[in-house]
Amino acid sequence: MTSTSFDTAELYPTTRVAAVAEAAGRAGLGALLLTPGPDLRYVTGYEAMPLERLTCLAVPASGEPFLVVPRLELSAAEHSPASRLGLEFVPWDETDDPYALVARRIGPVGRVGLADRMWALQSLRFRDAMPGAEQVLAGSVLRELRMRKSPAEAAALAEAGAAIDTVHGLVPGLLKAGRTEREVGKDIAEAIIEAGHARVDFVIVGSGPNGASPHHELSDRVIQPGEPVVVDIGGTMPSGYCSDSTRVYCVGEPPAEFTAYYEVLRQAQEAACAHVRPGVTCESVDAAAREVITEAGFGAEFIHRTGHGIGLETHEEPYIVSGNTEPMRPGYAFSVEPGIYLAGRHGARIEDIVICGETAGERLNHTSRELIVV
Amino acid sequence: MTSTSFDTAELYPTTRVAAVAEAAGRAGLGALLLTPGPDLRYVTGYEAMPLERLTCLAVPASGEPFLVVPRLELSAAEHSPASRLGLEFVPWDETDDPYALVARRIGPVGRVGLADRMWALQSLRFRDAMPGAEQVLAGSVLRELRMRKSPAEAAALAEAGAAIDTVHGLVPGLLKAGRTEREVGKDIAEAIIEAGHARVDFVIVGSGPNGASPHHELSDRVIQPGEPVVVDIGGTMPSGYCSDSTRVYCVGEPPAEFTAYYEVLRQAQEAACAHVRPGVTCESVDAAAREVITEAGFGAEFIHRTGHGIGLETHEEPYIVSGNTEPMRPGYAFSVEPGIYLAGRHGARIEDIVICGETAGERLNHTSRELIVV
Repeated sequence: MTSTSFDTAELYPTTRVAAVAEAAGRAGLGALLLTPGPDLRYVTGYEAMPLERLTCLAVPASGEPFLVVPRLELSAAEHSPASRLGLEFVPWDETDDPYALVARRIGPVGRVGLADRMWALQSLRFRDAMPGAEQVLAGSVLRELRMRKSPAEAAALAEAGAAIDTVHGLVPGLLKAGRTEREVGKDIAEAIIEAGHARVDFVIVGSGPNGASPHHELSDRVIQPGEPVVVDIGGTMPSGYCSDSTRVYCVGEPPAEFTAYYEVLRQAQEAACAHVRPGVTCESVDAAAREVITEAGFGAEFIHRTGHGIGLETHEEPYIVSGNTEPMRPGYAFSVEPGIYLAGRHGARIEDIVICGETAGERLNHTSRELIVV
Repeated sequence: MTSTSFDTAELYPTTRVAAVAEAAGRAGLGALLLTPGPDLRYVTGYEAMPLERLTCLAVPASGEPFLVVPRLELSAAEHSPASRLGLEFVPWDETDDPYALVARRIGPVGRVGLADRMWALQSLRFRDAMPGAEQVLAGSVLRELRMRKSPAEAAALAEAGAAIDTVHGLVPGLLKAGRTEREVGKDIAEAIIEAGHARVDFVIVGSGPNGASPHHELSDRVIQPGEPVVVDIGGTMPSGYCSDSTRVYCVGEPPAEFTAYYEVLRQAQEAACAHVRPGVTCESVDAAAREVITEAGFGAEFIHRTGHGIGLETHEEPYIVSGNTEPMRPGYAFSVEPGIYLAGRHGARIEDIVICGETAGERLNHTSRELIVV
């Protein structure tokens, strides 16, 4: 199944370019330069390929925005959601200098915001083409907008959450002692696409000691009876919005020490989710999980932050980490994923995407958080 | 089938870091900073995930290189080919400032080379953490090395070429009037993985008028009888090296005007491939194709450069384009892909990967370049 249930007009409103230009002006930026990636997609809906040929939306704080595009990509741009915006499309030919073209049209500006994911290949050329302009991150302007998900964005994240829940529902049928992590991972990747994602972003199957390495992906290790297996999976939906959820399975009866700390982890994840509401700081959500784990004596085994924002990127602001005193606001969407890792033995992590509502957090993943014995 | 036939030690020799440091010194750079992407993989073999958390190989022109890595990624780095290099791994914790850490260890330098694909999120933080260092592209140092493929790299590209040839061999069985481009594209994507690629990079199925838009990907357009279909596909092998090949199919008998210009195109592609040898300029390979097409009256319909380098990136240097006076050298690998596009009607492109040998070019794709009527 390929889902295209999202409504482009709602998810990527045509009013966004003007709102972004205004925010850039308020922040003292003369213009934003957005190359292919999540910033460009957020503003226009256009999912352009990141290529060495420059595609760039220029959004002056005052004046008309325009999209510089290789002539080769002009048809793709014209058939993309960017065509709804009434922008001027400025094609360039194979032997033109598109950086000089952008600089000339923008004119002199004091500060210019670059898409956070702009390649150095491009940012250094813009630096040379616009020698008077101080480069800052476009994220300094866009972060406020991108962090507060609209109802349409919340619905897109809920759709992504439901899709990855479907995949977790299939995992017990795929995990068997004797199969390798890679074999299971390949089946999961197919299921991620079948469930409606446009793209597989990551598949982590960490069996036994590999579960103690949080970003372990797949190996040829054969899953053994009685081993806990951490399954952390995600993809990107046709809407552009991402899924990310972790559950722990056990192939047969788990070791007793594992069951004990798994229950601590489950309570920690519950406490952090329950703590979410407008006004509390991002770091306090981290602390809510960390306290439960630390009190149970596993503080040193919880070796990462509690979560990351999610939207058009799997990892984006706000980060749920000590030191982030940003207060929660309705529409913030992020993972809550504490973990406990016993190096060389096994590990566990439980992860849901949570969105901050008007009074509390709401989870977008709904499969059981109990240890699933298969 | 998942191929792992490449030899890491040959493809990513451990001597490369020292060679790169020396080249940086010769170019007047104090250090290179390589974040996840093709530059880092070229130097270390490490395929690190591009993430907001900084992973960075620092290669001082003199002094010891080191890999700064989030503690969370330490185990992955230790299990990666980077572990063969005898580098110091410098882990950082969730609340550390890794940019300051790199700057402190590097010390004052006049010029620093950034990975060409480093995100602005990182390059602007390095700029602020190393205020005395002029940022330039690491590509200015790495391009010479990366362009000249070693015998192991040539073998990896040949393996990729054979894999995508396998997929083109299956296309006639997938193309049928009545199917949509998207349906065919989904089957091709699966075949790309089955043929041994680790990742699908792009699938272009351009039927009828969509074939006249060179970077059209997939649509819900239903393929009609008698229509030419441009199929341009590629992926990345487990080795890290990429495939890219285009063939044109016709579902039933093609229009006569199409057959006529297809033959021009075939001769142009042949002429460009035959022109390849050490010492000729990159632009002369473009000219060799363009002359044939222009003489036949289709010059205005050949709207892009003739090709791009290929290796760890689908598009890398050298570019086969007017204005590129770089002379060919043995080991240069690139696409030769002229096209003729009749807007609103149909189009054609024929693409092989070619590697420059000691006396001539050698194609790495071997399926028939005749128009394939299915």
